[in-house]
Amino acid sequence: MVPHLVTALTGPINELEARILDSLPAIERWFRLEWMEHTPPFYCAVDLRNSGFKLAPVDTSLYPTAFNHLTPEMLPLAVQAAMAAIEKICPEAKNLLLLPDSALVQRNPFYLGHLQRLVRIFSQAGLNVRLGALDLRIDQPQTLRAPDGGELLLEPLLRTPRRLGLKDFDPCTILVNDDLVAGTPAVLENLHEQYLLPPLHAGWGLRRKSRHFQSYEDVAKKFAKLLGMDPWLINPMYATCGEVDFSSPGGLDCVQANVDALLTKIRRKYKEYGINERPFVVVKSDDGHHGAGIITVRDARELPDLQQRCADKAAGVTEVIIQEGVATYERVHEAMAEPVVYMIDRYVVGGFYRVHAERGVDESLSGPGGRFVPLAFADGHQLPRPGDKPGVSAPNRFYMYGVIGRLAMLAASYELEATDPDAETYE
Amino acid sequence: MVPHLVTALTGPINELEARILDSLPAIERWFRLEWMEHTPPFYCAVDLRNSGFKLAPVDTSLYPTAFNHLTPEMLPLAVQAAMAAIEKICPEAKNLLLLPDSALVQRNPFYLGHLQRLVRIFSQAGLNVRLGALDLRIDQPQTLRAPDGGELLLEPLLRTPRRLGLKDFDPCTILVNDDLVAGTPAVLENLHEQYLLPPLHAGWGLRRKSRHFQSYEDVAKKFAKLLGMDPWLINPMYATCGEVDFSSPGGLDCVQANVDALLTKIRRKYKEYGINERPFVVVKSDDGHHGAGIITVRDARELPDLQQRCADKAAGVTEVIIQEGVATYERVHEAMAEPVVYMIDRYVVGGFYRVHAERGVDESLSGPGGRFVPLAFADGHQLPRPGDKPGVSAPNRFYMYGVIGRLAMLAASYELEATDPDAETYE
Repeated sequence: MVPHLVTALTGPINELEARILDSLPAIERWFRLEWMEHTPPFYCAVDLRNSGFKLAPVDTSLYPTAFNHLTPEMLPLAVQAAMAAIEKICPEAKNLLLLPDSALVQRNPFYLGHLQRLVRIFSQAGLNVRLGALDLRIDQPQTLRAPDGGELLLEPLLRTPRRLGLKDFDPCTILVNDDLVAGTPAVLENLHEQYLLPPLHAGWGLRRKSRHFQSYEDVAKKFAKLLGMDPWLINPMYATCGEVDFSSPGGLDCVQANVDALLTKIRRKYKEYGINERPFVVVKSDDGHHGAGIITVRDARELPDLQQRCADKAAGVTEVIIQEGVATYERVHEAMAEPVVYMIDRYVVGGFYRVHAERGVDESLSGPGGRFVPLAFADGHQLPRPGDKPGVSAPNRFYMYGVIGRLAMLAASYELEATDPDAETYE
Repeated sequence: MVPHLVTALTGPINELEARILDSLPAIERWFRLEWMEHTPPFYCAVDLRNSGFKLAPVDTSLYPTAFNHLTPEMLPLAVQAAMAAIEKICPEAKNLLLLPDSALVQRNPFYLGHLQRLVRIFSQAGLNVRLGALDLRIDQPQTLRAPDGGELLLEPLLRTPRRLGLKDFDPCTILVNDDLVAGTPAVLENLHEQYLLPPLHAGWGLRRKSRHFQSYEDVAKKFAKLLGMDPWLINPMYATCGEVDFSSPGGLDCVQANVDALLTKIRRKYKEYGINERPFVVVKSDDGHHGAGIITVRDARELPDLQQRCADKAAGVTEVIIQEGVATYERVHEAMAEPVVYMIDRYVVGGFYRVHAERGVDESLSGPGGRFVPLAFADGHQLPRPGDKPGVSAPNRFYMYGVIGRLAMLAASYELEATDPDAETYE
């Protein structure tokens, strides 16, 4: 089960690992205190990149898919975490309505495997789980066949003025697994009697990556202070441009200026740490059109040449985030790999490597051609082995990944508090 | 890892297993609601016996030892459960003072392995853990060498009028792992500023087995009602005698009368279920002198013959519990086996089989000559496999064991509420 890992083990990450292991009880206590003040997202998956000198989250999904890629050994942890989450949110709950991604549920058999896994986790945590169709054109129950031969029943939604449910099924909690990139469906509005998880403003139609990384910067600074280290080692720098018109001649001016400034900042940091790499930034849409239009830039002067390409790839993108690129120097056999950490409530419940044989160190590993290798969490028990030298122990590596994953989750919690449209009513 | 199990799979247990699996979400919800009203013991180990027609707890330890016999695969579950427990009891805690059993810590190397495991669990849950000596004659730090070569430091206690700690170590929480069978040590009295876990009245110097089984009967009845079944299938009947004088001629009269009455009741139940076994009862001291003086009786007329033996084995015993015997029909290879379920907070975190090659189906498997085989929780993930036929799937069996283990834990919670000497101050 343990993937054959080849990681460039240069100084800073080993130092970071050693510092994290040394501070274990303090770190766990710090998280405990943070979670007294802030509510963790119900579930969450964080993509990390480990460049050997820097470890940073690059994407925090509040509608995680691919739970089926976690090892079966992690299931009891997921069930236990789900029990803890339910106990806090709605201990008296009987029924959970799960709303799958309306596109994936129709066309991606692996997504059905993921849904089976979610159903299993929440059933075993003590809930009756049924699936509702966010696509309102579905007016009859639909039987979906999963890759393992199992079946899932997708049922039409029944909306009343105050509640959402299915025929003969009135849930206490509604768990959304569609990232709502197209905006908030009307059928989910004004459900004040039921727990809707995650809250609607977590949808990618409203969320902005830059807002998340603004919160992550706050979290990274606090955490770095606790550990007495430079937050840059875990925090990717970024800048934003508002209205970017990719088709007009001057449309990229803001992007070009920011790319240039950010590359200068990174160069300075590389010099400080004696890193002999050529820095790069990634330019991507600030909203949830993930995958579309991720452009890697090593020199602001490249940008005009890239403009035509941008115009194609990034059509429709208007808000842009320019982020410090973190190369992935982890490999599973020969292929580029990035770790993904899964959490339910405040607990790390598993993870895997997203692996892509045909991509470069500075490219996104999402998209076609990728595959998944379970993290050795299970074999290594995800628990650190104090005393092992930094860099030599898989469990130590994974504990560190779990810490950074949780920092990103905490950032999502800060972010959702800051962007909550109903926040003032609680004060 | 999966022990080779041979279990007599007669009707009632298979029916019970099927009913428990069918009712899974309802059972988990029921536990959730119970834990809203009652506080689980901090940690707990329950010995079970499965006779093929009856599954019952026979001992509920509130100072569990042998955490080292759980599989390493279960560690993350234990850590997660410990995190959940700490979060509820004292989220701001930094330091945990662990008080080992004062006798075992000096003479049993396996117990040191157990302590290492506890230290690891609570450290990784985010606490600084140190060990204090309940034996006040220890006035210098003492280095103990564990079987794996690791070391543990046992330090003298420092008691101030209001607090207990060690040199330069002021804990928020004190976790006792000594069953206090000799009574409550003065050094633990009047600690109102710190969390003392378990509470002092959980000590075997004060606890009575009959009080536990009285609470267990309540719990078993509630649970049986939920499942629409006969509580006898999970509940061992019992009776008590107060002052028993084993040395006087008429001293056993009460015991004899109760043994006779209990055997008659069991015979009636066996007849009802068509069970062709000879019933038996066990006579043991009602307080915590476990192991000492457990006598198996199949006929009240045997008792006078046993009196001499009793007088030797049960010297000093005055209060007696007479309990329905539950034979163990589980075997690991050829040896008698009884499952033991471990819990932290409300969560099952592992278990093992206590195995004894030289004991009979109706004898205690504790004591010299026993060994331990980890339960296949890890491999089977302790999670039920709905759809598997009852009796054929190890995970289903272990889920059922986890349910009965938690019923006994819930009974301990009822028991500690009922016996709390400070209870009236909370009302």
